[in-house]
Amino acid sequence: MITPHGVVQTPAFMPVGTRGAVKAVAHRDLEDLGAEIILGNTYHLYLKPGDSLIARCGGLHKFISWNRPILTDSGGYQVFSLAAMRRIDDEGATFRSHIDGSLHLLTPERAVDIQAQLGSDIAMVLDECVATVPTGDQELAAVRTAMERSARWAQRARGRQLQLREEPHSAPEVIVTNIGQAQFGIIQGGIDLQLRTESVQRTIEIGFESYAIGGLSVGEPVDVMYDVVAHTAPLLPDDRPRYLMGTGMPDDLIECVARGIDLFDCVLPTRNARNGQLLTSHGPMAIKNARYAEDMSPPDPDCSCYTCRHFSRAYLRHLFVVGEMTAATLNSLHNIHFYLDTMRRIREAIVFGSFEKLRREFHQTFSRRPQI
Amino acid sequence: MITPHGVVQTPAFMPVGTRGAVKAVAHRDLEDLGAEIILGNTYHLYLKPGDSLIARCGGLHKFISWNRPILTDSGGYQVFSLAAMRRIDDEGATFRSHIDGSLHLLTPERAVDIQAQLGSDIAMVLDECVATVPTGDQELAAVRTAMERSARWAQRARGRQLQLREEPHSAPEVIVTNIGQAQFGIIQGGIDLQLRTESVQRTIEIGFESYAIGGLSVGEPVDVMYDVVAHTAPLLPDDRPRYLMGTGMPDDLIECVARGIDLFDCVLPTRNARNGQLLTSHGPMAIKNARYAEDMSPPDPDCSCYTCRHFSRAYLRHLFVVGEMTAATLNSLHNIHFYLDTMRRIREAIVFGSFEKLRREFHQTFSRRPQI
Repeated sequence: MITPHGVVQTPAFMPVGTRGAVKAVAHRDLEDLGAEIILGNTYHLYLKPGDSLIARCGGLHKFISWNRPILTDSGGYQVFSLAAMRRIDDEGATFRSHIDGSLHLLTPERAVDIQAQLGSDIAMVLDECVATVPTGDQELAAVRTAMERSARWAQRARGRQLQLREEPHSAPEVIVTNIGQAQFGIIQGGIDLQLRTESVQRTIEIGFESYAIGGLSVGEPVDVMYDVVAHTAPLLPDDRPRYLMGTGMPDDLIECVARGIDLFDCVLPTRNARNGQLLTSHGPMAIKNARYAEDMSPPDPDCSCYTCRHFSRAYLRHLFVVGEMTAATLNSLHNIHFYLDTMRRIREAIVFGSFEKLRREFHQTFSRRPQI
Repeated sequence: MITPHGVVQTPAFMPVGTRGAVKAVAHRDLEDLGAEIILGNTYHLYLKPGDSLIARCGGLHKFISWNRPILTDSGGYQVFSLAAMRRIDDEGATFRSHIDGSLHLLTPERAVDIQAQLGSDIAMVLDECVATVPTGDQELAAVRTAMERSARWAQRARGRQLQLREEPHSAPEVIVTNIGQAQFGIIQGGIDLQLRTESVQRTIEIGFESYAIGGLSVGEPVDVMYDVVAHTAPLLPDDRPRYLMGTGMPDDLIECVARGIDLFDCVLPTRNARNGQLLTSHGPMAIKNARYAEDMSPPDPDCSCYTCRHFSRAYLRHLFVVGEMTAATLNSLHNIHFYLDTMRRIREAIVFGSFEKLRREFHQTFSRRPQI
């Protein structure tokens, strides 16, 4: 995947740098880990320090001094999950900031403008994500309504994006800090395959640089998620990266690549690291467990990351138990390494035609059950 | 200074690694910054994870995977400043843990044993530090009492240290994890020069591998501190490193080297970093200040640290304001670099005979007043 800030080898995993920083990890460590792209959250950056301030500083890359590609979401997901209040209508999402209660209106056009000011390499359209798994006709209708609204919003977002590209002088209030920014459309439709098909048709008809699958990993069973991906991904153009938003566990990466996904993001490796959960080739490991108190072996003997090469379970447990910040850093380094290394192995296996072998071996070793 | 874990170039500054980690900074970053020795706090390590656990894991170096020298304090200072309750008598210090209220007795012998189990390269004797500046005869008497008790405790501590060295089998309950551990005596006596002289005589008479000046930087005016150092340091053997405990601001380093000090430790660079204060060649800088919101220049244009080479005041302010952990890391990297770099420049100036020139230039640039 070629972007204004360089090439990203796919399939790729994007560590989440919510507020312009991947939590507890310095940029140089991310670079050493081989992160070729990170994700920034528009909702957070819009509220603090503000997209206009970032634009005046030259855009997000310059502001945070990260010279590799950045993808930004639209802010919609955080409005739904974090804001103190939200009201959705056709115009957009009215919400109150979770920080100071201030009132904001996020429209499809505004989400484009904010991301234009941030200057990410890939901007996402504003969509309405129904974060529940429908169980009855009424809920299914809500999913259809949201999908249809998302399609109308996508149309407006594309119009605004093309306006900023083609007639930048018509929007003097927006500082476009990355003229090569791509825009991805988002497929909605919940777990209903027919709605997904319809969403794909409507979104492709609008026409974006590429497409993402949204509205998954919101509580549905993992097999259902896999089925929706297996249905939807092949409907998307095969000459562009297909992005599965907000997923997932390490085995999800392999299973969704098998179903046609090229791009992932998830807070799981970093958030779980801060909560003391290491994700290893054998499965999740709760480092605070008393059984590790004097265990001088590395978290994952098969791992080549800085943490596993230098530190013992006993030390990492101690750091976590006493609340040292370094616990978050060392655990995050490991988890991000594990995710990026898994993607590296997937890419290599694809090149060498051994993906199915890797997939089999991965599942033989990895279990979602906590390690004994 | 030669230790079992390598040579330390003096004068040297020791970053404080309270609980087996310098807060917010990974070991490899400390090594890259040129930290040749760190300090560990016996009080904290004794309470969690416990010196016996660390001994069973092979000692502190192995437990925390830091292969360079470590100095440990005796735990006394934290008993005085942190414990939930403390009572001092000739036997030792009885105190309650600030973590769980449990009752402990720290004697001069116990402080030796704990540090023997930690296996630091330099162990400090337990002393009684009167953390007030005496203003009347009664308070001066208290300083004398504490100095005399410290001398008696030093005698007992030395006896125990030599016993562990020469007859290790006589103390089977202690796992000595570093047979080459040195022991430093501590000079007390507050700001009374006569008491300081007496303390030096009594401590040297006992005989330690080297000596530290304790009981300063506890609230006395900086000139008084300098005078006590100027009086005391020359009384100590000049073929061994003289250690000034718990000091200080960057200009203190230069002024105390000028008065004969070779070894420093202080939480100031790391603690202030976490509170958003950067120490630069021009003086302290409160990074949260609104004037830095869009300031794209580095914190200290004269600094070559990772933070200053890559990040702007605007970004560092943003990270601090939103509470990203990375703020603590990047600020700490800078402050530790500034301290270690100052020591490097001091050592170089001494070698080239230009120390007085460096001292003059440092004061011309550096001001303790916050930078505008």
